[in-house]
Amino acid sequence: MTLLETIRGPRDLKALGQEEVRELAAEIREFLIQAVSKTGGHLGPNLGVVELTLALHRVFESPRDRILWDTGHQSYVHKLLTGRQDFSKLRKKGGLSGYPSRAESEHDVIENSHASTVLGWADGLAKARDVQGMQGHVVAVTGDGALTGGMAWEALNNIAAAKDQPLIIVVNDNERSYAPTIGGLADHLATLRVTNGYEKVLAWGKDVLDRTPVVGRPLYESLHGAKKGFKDAFAPQGMFEDLGLKYLGPFDGHDMEAVESGLRRAARFEGPVIVHCITEKGRGYEPALRHDADRFHTVLAMDPLTCEPLTPSGPPSWTSVFSDELVRIAEERDDIVALTAAMLDPVGLTPFAERFPDRIWDVGIAEQHATVTAAGLATGGLHPVVALYATFLNRAFDQLLMDVALHKCGVTFVLDRAGVTGADGASHNGMWDMSVLQVVPGLRIAAPRDAGQLRAQLREAVDVHDAPTLVRYPKESVGEDIPAVGTVGSMDVLHRAESAEVLLVAVGVMAPVCLQAARLLQDRGIGATVVDPRWVKPVDPELPALAAAHRLVAVVEDNSRASGVGAAVALALGDAEVDVPVRLFGIPDQFLAHGKRGELLADLGLTPVEIAGRIGATLDRKGAGAETGATLDRKENEEA
Amino acid sequence: MTLLETIRGPRDLKALGQEEVRELAAEIREFLIQAVSKTGGHLGPNLGVVELTLALHRVFESPRDRILWDTGHQSYVHKLLTGRQDFSKLRKKGGLSGYPSRAESEHDVIENSHASTVLGWADGLAKARDVQGMQGHVVAVTGDGALTGGMAWEALNNIAAAKDQPLIIVVNDNERSYAPTIGGLADHLATLRVTNGYEKVLAWGKDVLDRTPVVGRPLYESLHGAKKGFKDAFAPQGMFEDLGLKYLGPFDGHDMEAVESGLRRAARFEGPVIVHCITEKGRGYEPALRHDADRFHTVLAMDPLTCEPLTPSGPPSWTSVFSDELVRIAEERDDIVALTAAMLDPVGLTPFAERFPDRIWDVGIAEQHATVTAAGLATGGLHPVVALYATFLNRAFDQLLMDVALHKCGVTFVLDRAGVTGADGASHNGMWDMSVLQVVPGLRIAAPRDAGQLRAQLREAVDVHDAPTLVRYPKESVGEDIPAVGTVGSMDVLHRAESAEVLLVAVGVMAPVCLQAARLLQDRGIGATVVDPRWVKPVDPELPALAAAHRLVAVVEDNSRASGVGAAVALALGDAEVDVPVRLFGIPDQFLAHGKRGELLADLGLTPVEIAGRIGATLDRKGAGAETGATLDRKENEEA
Repeated sequence: MTLLETIRGPRDLKALGQEEVRELAAEIREFLIQAVSKTGGHLGPNLGVVELTLALHRVFESPRDRILWDTGHQSYVHKLLTGRQDFSKLRKKGGLSGYPSRAESEHDVIENSHASTVLGWADGLAKARDVQGMQGHVVAVTGDGALTGGMAWEALNNIAAAKDQPLIIVVNDNERSYAPTIGGLADHLATLRVTNGYEKVLAWGKDVLDRTPVVGRPLYESLHGAKKGFKDAFAPQGMFEDLGLKYLGPFDGHDMEAVESGLRRAARFEGPVIVHCITEKGRGYEPALRHDADRFHTVLAMDPLTCEPLTPSGPPSWTSVFSDELVRIAEERDDIVALTAAMLDPVGLTPFAERFPDRIWDVGIAEQHATVTAAGLATGGLHPVVALYATFLNRAFDQLLMDVALHKCGVTFVLDRAGVTGADGASHNGMWDMSVLQVVPGLRIAAPRDAGQLRAQLREAVDVHDAPTLVRYPKESVGEDIPAVGTVGSMDVLHRAESAEVLLVAVGVMAPVCLQAARLLQDRGIGATVVDPRWVKPVDPELPALAAAHRLVAVVEDNSRASGVGAAVALALGDAEVDVPVRLFGIPDQFLAHGKRGELLADLGLTPVEIAGRIGATLDRKGAGAETGATLDRKENEEA
Repeated sequence: MTLLETIRGPRDLKALGQEEVRELAAEIREFLIQAVSKTGGHLGPNLGVVELTLALHRVFESPRDRILWDTGHQSYVHKLLTGRQDFSKLRKKGGLSGYPSRAESEHDVIENSHASTVLGWADGLAKARDVQGMQGHVVAVTGDGALTGGMAWEALNNIAAAKDQPLIIVVNDNERSYAPTIGGLADHLATLRVTNGYEKVLAWGKDVLDRTPVVGRPLYESLHGAKKGFKDAFAPQGMFEDLGLKYLGPFDGHDMEAVESGLRRAARFEGPVIVHCITEKGRGYEPALRHDADRFHTVLAMDPLTCEPLTPSGPPSWTSVFSDELVRIAEERDDIVALTAAMLDPVGLTPFAERFPDRIWDVGIAEQHATVTAAGLATGGLHPVVALYATFLNRAFDQLLMDVALHKCGVTFVLDRAGVTGADGASHNGMWDMSVLQVVPGLRIAAPRDAGQLRAQLREAVDVHDAPTLVRYPKESVGEDIPAVGTVGSMDVLHRAESAEVLLVAVGVMAPVCLQAARLLQDRGIGATVVDPRWVKPVDPELPALAAAHRLVAVVEDNSRASGVGAAVALALGDAEVDVPVRLFGIPDQFLAHGKRGELLADLGLTPVEIAGRIGATLDRKGAGAETGATLDRKENEEA
């Protein structure tokens, strides 16, 4: 039995001596490398917080004390120490979530994985404790990356104002979130780090580390431990102290005794206090340290020694198609610039950054700033492309509406990971964009169905100079191009039947599903037209007339059923006095648990069989009506 | 001819000597007091920036140099100096906007009035200038209140990182936005202010001021001017410098020579620089200084001497009904706490704050923090009520979705100024909430039709402990209570006809409009049922059956037609296989210019005549159908 296996909960940690804890840390690193290599997941961030998490659970009494994690992907060690050691189905259906989960454990509080929220939660929990005269520490673990988000500032401002409210903020500073942290704050943290030669000491430790075995290095730890008295005594304060926050540190986040001592001091303080810990992303995993640490932020299932992925890479991803086309466009047009919110590589902007380093900005985890700055850039004569994960645009809704759209700015938003994403769980699904953004005046939304359309629609989008445009596409690989068999207005007809009763409006990537549903309907003797609207906002003015030639309209989208493309289509039909019944297929009004994208879509009934079945049932209920579909010839411009 | 009347544009200011500029400042104050007393508008903030605005336009060359205003209500002086001196129809239809407006002047850039955006705009404009090798200063005027918003932090972080990018940030520090600014930042600004006895000097100046005539006090100005050399030499730096921003100040914002000199120094600096100016809200208007300065932030039309409103106050406002009922509820329940984002008084929370000072928090202009902290408070065992203007909740959409709803937190949002608000223009209308929030799983939305319903639904809302609830109501006074004549499910039937062909779904305050439309339809021989759904999300499960008994459903809401209550009703009908045609009446997909609420609703066709007319026309087109409405008796539970 390993030492790790004997740890059933945080209480089991208290009895361990420092030597045993170091042994445990080594076991945890080995476990993480082996387990996450098998399933894929967040490796680098968790390797960086092994000692910090051990120290937190040794010093505090979870769940009476609340240990809160910002951006929950750094909670694997916390899971291991709170009774969750079966990582075999990590991030898979029925397995452990990749984030904290209240359903899994009483030690978990915050489930979402949108960054920068933890300080606000902590402020609320601390206030609730004090209003009710209750006991217990509130400990918020945040990162230098998360501190670049505006919410963190709003929270710090409020926490600092509550001078008598005990609250411990642990800044896990590894100089990066997904990418190196940028901005004035990062520079200031760097100043704090270099004061008193702290960085030199750390660098020296790292040199030693690189020459010792992969995990566990008591020599370095003990030598380094001797420095901490000196270090703390001369610690700088800077802007945190200016705000009225007590500052402790910086501590070497891999020096267990130093961190525990810092946390104990913080726990005695009767007001808000910051504990600044320097950690190393990927700590103890040689490939992560030797290569680019960000490459190991999230890993696919891989061989832990060679780091080769276990499954060969498939066809190109949507991301790579966007990445390639944007560089081409920018080569033709000097006015194209790009913005990313701490996700340069995941959204595919690395080639752009290499080719046009002066025309791209990483603003930090700051979608609000990306969006409002884009309004400024557009007003100043450029055409910005803001590339984000779909779920994170939710943070910038007000700015898209009030700064970009109200000011008629030509800004193109590109949303990756739109629709159901899967493994990351509830907070990473990008299933609300086509609903929420319906209200934005002037905004045009494209949902390309394939790589060819993505390239074409991206070009159409950046050609609009007096309104915002948005192009959205899902995670994973892009399939074969799907040819149009005709056009109606700006819409592509993908399939026609002799006598069409049903109009299937196939939004973006739902095109193949709709084509297959049409075939299944045909087998039942029901003719269907499949149309790809291409631009889903505004609704094409010719859609109502097309709909009028059918008995039923079904809109299929990988987006919330509430208020989405289907709602817009129904509104357009009503405005045109076309009262063909409309049925909406999409994601119901609920949060989705983690699982594979395909599994989740099947669970939601977004499969050809389900869609065809429900349409057939509706038509059966209605019986053979008078309003049978006319042929579409008069409405279509046939392709040559 | 006054000196002011000779100023046709900023160029005319350059030739003036300091004595003339002081005279001009006095004229401007007198003009503002007289003009704004007649029309109503933002008085206090504009009296505070007279010298600052004069200095900006004397030092810089607008529009080549971009002078940008955060929260544009402080732009009246700027308007006067850029060719706009007809204030007779300020904030009225066809008159000057209360904010900057690009349609009015080439000197205006940012139109919206959501705070904290200017630094992001400035960063974008400065980057656009530099990428294209263009010239010109970018000058952002922000306030201490606006700096509490997260966007400001995101921008500062990025601006500081661009060390070679000239950008001038003027902090107009009057210690308040709508209310005194709170938080660690405010404390830090206070520290900057008191260093070198600056505050003592200012206080002494204020004493003198209080004993001199209302406007213009050359003695104080010149005495005070002598201090500035000393002051600047010993100016503190603090957190701005820690972030890497050059800091100049603090300057007395009413000392024209000091401010001009500070701005000229800033203009020579080849990187980002902060110019800290201390101003006094309401400066030069005795009633504002003698009483509470915040009372004069916005004024109704009033007598400038007595400050009595010109029109007698009407019936109670929606705000006051909420204000009163919340205190009653909080007296019964210890777990009720309240949050406001720098709008304590405008949202009606002053009585709550007086009664329960330990159960309310003003978080600053930080809707994100208000929302995420509410999640923490709820998780900690309390029931928070977050009171905001409807338009400002847009800033916290992600937090409502990801922190409150995903975590099933019992938090009640109360949205004042929902729907069309009018005089404040495009960015203050709260016309998107019932659309955007349709996607939030578990959220319940109430739109009360009258004071009685507001009280009842607020109580129903705070009784929900495992999901967010929201209550929304408009600006202005609340009318008489409207009795129900029956109920269907949780819905109130407000009117019944013998043989009803049309079902009017009257959302909240649209009830009287719908009742009158029903009467007009009756005159045309068309029977209508009027139902108030009370809770518009989720749709009452009995609505489809009620709809099925009619030939047409019309949903009337003071909210975007796109994706709103109407869309939700249409979806529910489709899901129930009820294919009664649905028509949506609401606000079209556009931004609204300023004007009176009633004028705007009329322009949008949200009047009984228009609604009845359009419904009649639709029924005429359809002819006398087979599906005439049945009586509703079987569906209704008659009232006793």
